[in-house]
Amino acid sequence: MDHFREELQELNDKLLEMSGLVESSIALSVDAVINRNKDAIATVFRKESDINRLELQIDEISLRLLALQQPVAVDLRFVMMSIKINNNLERMGDIAQNISQYAAILIETPEPAPRIDIPHMAKLAQNMIKDSLDAFVRRDVELARKVLMSDDEVDAMRDRMYSDIRKYMEEAPSLVNPGLEYLFIARGLERLADHATNIAEDVLFFVQGVDVRHNADAAGLPTA
Amino acid sequence: MDHFREELQELNDKLLEMSGLVESSIALSVDAVINRNKDAIATVFRKESDINRLELQIDEISLRLLALQQPVAVDLRFVMMSIKINNNLERMGDIAQNISQYAAILIETPEPAPRIDIPHMAKLAQNMIKDSLDAFVRRDVELARKVLMSDDEVDAMRDRMYSDIRKYMEEAPSLVNPGLEYLFIARGLERLADHATNIAEDVLFFVQGVDVRHNADAAGLPTA
Repeated sequence: MDHFREELQELNDKLLEMSGLVESSIALSVDAVINRNKDAIATVFRKESDINRLELQIDEISLRLLALQQPVAVDLRFVMMSIKINNNLERMGDIAQNISQYAAILIETPEPAPRIDIPHMAKLAQNMIKDSLDAFVRRDVELARKVLMSDDEVDAMRDRMYSDIRKYMEEAPSLVNPGLEYLFIARGLERLADHATNIAEDVLFFVQGVDVRHNADAAGLPTA
Repeated sequence: MDHFREELQELNDKLLEMSGLVESSIALSVDAVINRNKDAIATVFRKESDINRLELQIDEISLRLLALQQPVAVDLRFVMMSIKINNNLERMGDIAQNISQYAAILIETPEPAPRIDIPHMAKLAQNMIKDSLDAFVRRDVELARKVLMSDDEVDAMRDRMYSDIRKYMEEAPSLVNPGLEYLFIARGLERLADHATNIAEDVLFFVQGVDVRHNADAAGLPTA
């Protein structure tokens, strides 16, 4: 394997390491919310510096590749995709950390929780993330399209949760504060799903060479 | 001017056009909130498709430049910076649209507004955005640093607003709904300021060649 291929491989491996870290941070933050797990929160915070370090490394490798190897065609698109996915993953790590912070506050809150299905919403977001990253690893166009099609389900679920949380907060002034924490968690899960969608779009662009943003037709999605 | 320089100039011009559109969308969305201006909301929505179109064009030009011209050194960093700033600008356009949507709901709301200083927070975010984009245009390191140092002020202001909005929502169940709209607007302004910070970081990276993310020292900022 020549030096150029080695560097592309290194970029690929670092992205996989980054994906693994971010996925595990998300799983821990969801565990912190659902099972009031304090240890999970501490672990999310410890992982944060690893994620930040990897983000910088991946950008450095990408930039070095572009500057010294001047990749073309599919290799160039791979490097571009890596830079974008890297950016998405770093933000997802931040969101996991935010969710953990809200969980930490809720653990100390005596008020009953609203009747919202956080485990279901979390599962949906986590599946989208897993699928988008698998689509990246396997260059799997079908799987990337599947992620894009989950978006409506996330929106419907988000609307239902927001409405339930609003009602909960209206029940008593003491429920305003915990309600806001739950709202921020729901919003975090929704944003995680958005990032999974971004990654899936980048994978489609990389594999097919077409830009599907603002263009459902090019993505091979049904246009309503 | 050779063809390569012409393409770099085109990229620069498109980014300026995009910046102008996004800045004006933000100004309109703030006007919609503060002056209950319905016309402004409609204009923000009309600008959205222009912003999306420009985002795709800028990415295309960047990718074409990388593929066909294989820029190195400062030109390569300029193209990388353009891709990142483009991404930030598109998200800022989305946030302006969201703020307009909340404004549209609040215009129909009979309840009194909470006592929070939205004009001040908006001014702060808008100044950061203007400075970060001016820093980009003029390659001005000092101005980019100034943007990074405004971050604490934004955080302090955000905390004060959140606390005031929470208290407002606790006053009566009927204030929960409008309170949430104001909260989302405050959050949108905070995120706009975050994007200005991202752009300033990209400018520093571009001009100085150092990565200041997760590294206040390299940015020449005081390390607390």
